[in-house]
Amino acid sequence: MKFKFLLFVPLFIINFCLNSQTNWDELIDEHLKEIIKEHKDFVSIPNLPENKNLMLKNINWVGDNYKTLGFKVSLLESSSLPLLLLEKEYNPEFSTVLFYFHIDGQPVDANNWDQEDPFIPVLKSRDEKGKWKTLNWDAINQNIDNEWRIFARAAADDKAPIVMLLNALKFLNTEGITPKFNIKIVFDPEEEYGSNAFLSTIDTYKERYDADAMIIMDGPAHESNKPTLTFGCRGIATCTITTYGAKLPQHSGHYGNYVPNPVFSLSSILSSMKDETGKVLIKDFYSGIYFSSEEQQILNNVPDDTKVLNNRLGIKQPEKVGNNYQEALQYPSLNVRQIETSWKGNKPKTVIPEIAMANIDVRLVVETDGKAQLDKVKAHIENLGYTVLDRDPTDEERLKYSKIVKFTRSNGVNAFRTNLNSKLGTTLRENLTKIFGEVPISIRTMGGTVPIISAVKTLDVPAIIVPTVNMDNNQHSPNENIRIGNIREGIKTCIAILQSKI
Amino acid sequence: MKFKFLLFVPLFIINFCLNSQTNWDELIDEHLKEIIKEHKDFVSIPNLPENKNLMLKNINWVGDNYKTLGFKVSLLESSSLPLLLLEKEYNPEFSTVLFYFHIDGQPVDANNWDQEDPFIPVLKSRDEKGKWKTLNWDAINQNIDNEWRIFARAAADDKAPIVMLLNALKFLNTEGITPKFNIKIVFDPEEEYGSNAFLSTIDTYKERYDADAMIIMDGPAHESNKPTLTFGCRGIATCTITTYGAKLPQHSGHYGNYVPNPVFSLSSILSSMKDETGKVLIKDFYSGIYFSSEEQQILNNVPDDTKVLNNRLGIKQPEKVGNNYQEALQYPSLNVRQIETSWKGNKPKTVIPEIAMANIDVRLVVETDGKAQLDKVKAHIENLGYTVLDRDPTDEERLKYSKIVKFTRSNGVNAFRTNLNSKLGTTLRENLTKIFGEVPISIRTMGGTVPIISAVKTLDVPAIIVPTVNMDNNQHSPNENIRIGNIREGIKTCIAILQSKI
Repeated sequence: MKFKFLLFVPLFIINFCLNSQTNWDELIDEHLKEIIKEHKDFVSIPNLPENKNLMLKNINWVGDNYKTLGFKVSLLESSSLPLLLLEKEYNPEFSTVLFYFHIDGQPVDANNWDQEDPFIPVLKSRDEKGKWKTLNWDAINQNIDNEWRIFARAAADDKAPIVMLLNALKFLNTEGITPKFNIKIVFDPEEEYGSNAFLSTIDTYKERYDADAMIIMDGPAHESNKPTLTFGCRGIATCTITTYGAKLPQHSGHYGNYVPNPVFSLSSILSSMKDETGKVLIKDFYSGIYFSSEEQQILNNVPDDTKVLNNRLGIKQPEKVGNNYQEALQYPSLNVRQIETSWKGNKPKTVIPEIAMANIDVRLVVETDGKAQLDKVKAHIENLGYTVLDRDPTDEERLKYSKIVKFTRSNGVNAFRTNLNSKLGTTLRENLTKIFGEVPISIRTMGGTVPIISAVKTLDVPAIIVPTVNMDNNQHSPNENIRIGNIREGIKTCIAILQSKI
Repeated sequence: MKFKFLLFVPLFIINFCLNSQTNWDELIDEHLKEIIKEHKDFVSIPNLPENKNLMLKNINWVGDNYKTLGFKVSLLESSSLPLLLLEKEYNPEFSTVLFYFHIDGQPVDANNWDQEDPFIPVLKSRDEKGKWKTLNWDAINQNIDNEWRIFARAAADDKAPIVMLLNALKFLNTEGITPKFNIKIVFDPEEEYGSNAFLSTIDTYKERYDADAMIIMDGPAHESNKPTLTFGCRGIATCTITTYGAKLPQHSGHYGNYVPNPVFSLSSILSSMKDETGKVLIKDFYSGIYFSSEEQQILNNVPDDTKVLNNRLGIKQPEKVGNNYQEALQYPSLNVRQIETSWKGNKPKTVIPEIAMANIDVRLVVETDGKAQLDKVKAHIENLGYTVLDRDPTDEERLKYSKIVKFTRSNGVNAFRTNLNSKLGTTLRENLTKIFGEVPISIRTMGGTVPIISAVKTLDVPAIIVPTVNMDNNQHSPNENIRIGNIREGIKTCIAILQSKI
């Protein structure tokens, strides 16, 4: 009876019933061999922007694959390589989601790789001693182990996520399931080089990029390798502080005890900026920062293993800006990335240096604007009694002021953060929980800064980063790799996203 | 009657009477042309120790010239080029004075000179605009101007003094005057490169160098270009302070506010070492230093023009270790000559550096021993709570101690100073006063360190530096030169020295 009834119900209801019972793991497993071959095929096309033809080949590879799924393919003109934009409308009533990927890869230094060519992918497994051992590609015809890895430039960053979404769409298609939103996908051709091409298109093609939400598919998942949602990232502003001694380097014998040494004034400025625990002492540096007890709980829930982390870093005691690692990232930071005097030889010159310099970066959070933070740094130096210039002092100024600082700056780019309980956040969290059987890790703010942050801000769209690759993928380094298990789980993540009502 | 009597007095009394009336200026003027030719001849022999044959030619030039004055010429074996030692005994009852000169010159970068070859001397005068203009060498056949200069490597440093003493001896000889002491003269073949050759001979030839006083003929006179006696110079000790962050540079986004930045610990250490006026705050750093009111007067008598000095240096306010420049040099100094983090590129890496380093030199005075001073610096760091190692920390130490410093050191060479009122000092001052009609400038301690300081200390002999060349001689730089007037006055200085009862 039941069976008979089924024959009469419309096709989409049958599909729905089947779908609700779909065993995604089995389905993915069934097609994993083809997916790996597809990934291998894609990764074999070198993707360094210096070779425009090969980049176009990469772009065409993506366009052609999506075209078979009914996507409209456009190439948008930019300041250099074109932007690939794919669009598919499922229902005019649906919201629209803009996915972001990048096609390019980091430069390669082939000599430092353990394989002949970073663009000829190699399949490897670990031997008993934990050493990577090459497997014959035929191995994928039998049982594929989640711990195997594919080594190649861009194998993880960012070609794996492109293959993940592509296959998630294919599976939904086969299963007759329609995504719950209309889709736009943009492919940045130069993310590793600052995203200038993409950013140059934002104003012109703002409407083409228009969407109700943005999902950035890039970067590694949490260190625990569990499904991760990242709700924001810090921005960055930079400045340089230069202090002055005499006009030229002076003999430390002839003038030691007479000519002021700019290293001591620089040291005194820097040491006034932070206390011993790493907390910034600059007035109002942390002002406006607040998180609710619920948010506090989410920060505490991130399963960071502090002991492992500290051992890996080789530190006894982290700074105490936050009570734990996640909390620390909710605050702006003040970092001296470089200090120097003019002479840089291995054998120091016995001189009193004429300048000392500190090159600083300030990581920003949503509550702290780049210009405002740098203004506070500058005001702090002025309050120490320094005459602060934005250029080297003139001879007259040197004789007029005994305490001079040159302060140069770039207000940089501000942070973004999407509310953890926004509609976008909630639906993604729910659907990931459903498919994985556990709540994904929520990162309120990741520490780093992604180049497309200014696009997110211009498009003024709620954005979430969905990082899917293994943390130890050697991204940006030799021997980049993707763990097979992460390809499986990444596809599931994409399926969950596509089924989220955004 | 008087005249008749004269006929009967012994020859040396006649000489004495003549001598007491010798007009040295006239005599020097009469022979200046030949002296300049001699100097030109000497300076034309390149004197870079890398060319051994040419160095031997220089050594022979000196030896041959002194041989005609009856000096015994010896070549003493060293670790590299031989030491030239000249000896002449006038009277076994006399004291013996060891003169020190060096024969070698600083390296040349011919492209930066305003003449074709730094070893082809050029005679120049200033035009109305103060620009140097080449003169034909025939110009020395007419009136020779004191303001003319001879441009060539080693024209001043240190060949001019060699020619000065040589000619002073010749003049005394012509005038039938015997020097008031027996003479030894040593010529260092590698002073500009650390005096290793000379220092290697000290133990072996200690007796050959034995003397009652040592006169070091090197370096420029006081800025006022008046006759100068220098009674000592500072020593030098060096150390390096390294502070630690994580084991490797870390991404300032991912770890800013978590991984401690070694620049801040270094800054805090350095800024605890000096107050804002430049005074060292390290315990006992200045202990034992004292000068009498008489010595204070001598320091104050040096005609330093502070305004000119500060304008030239481009500083409003010197450090306040002493009440004036000369006083400042009576104290040990603490100078950071270089600071650095590991990355030295022009485009800073956005990382939290793994180390920060300060390279320090401590200039020493007679009262402060190098080892003792560095011990005080080290104790100061320990008192700030740091675990101080003499090597990089192990992984275990990194996890055990949160405050680690690497402190490496070279105790260097101690200062020397001869009493201003020693017999040597008094007699030289008196005789220079007699010949110049004014008291010479006495420098109690010069700021720099001469490489042969350890020889002075091993030979344990009262030593005075007699600097004779013009301060603006571009010593160690392109366009080195000697002012003609300084050759004249330098010869007079030597005549005065040779007539001093030491």
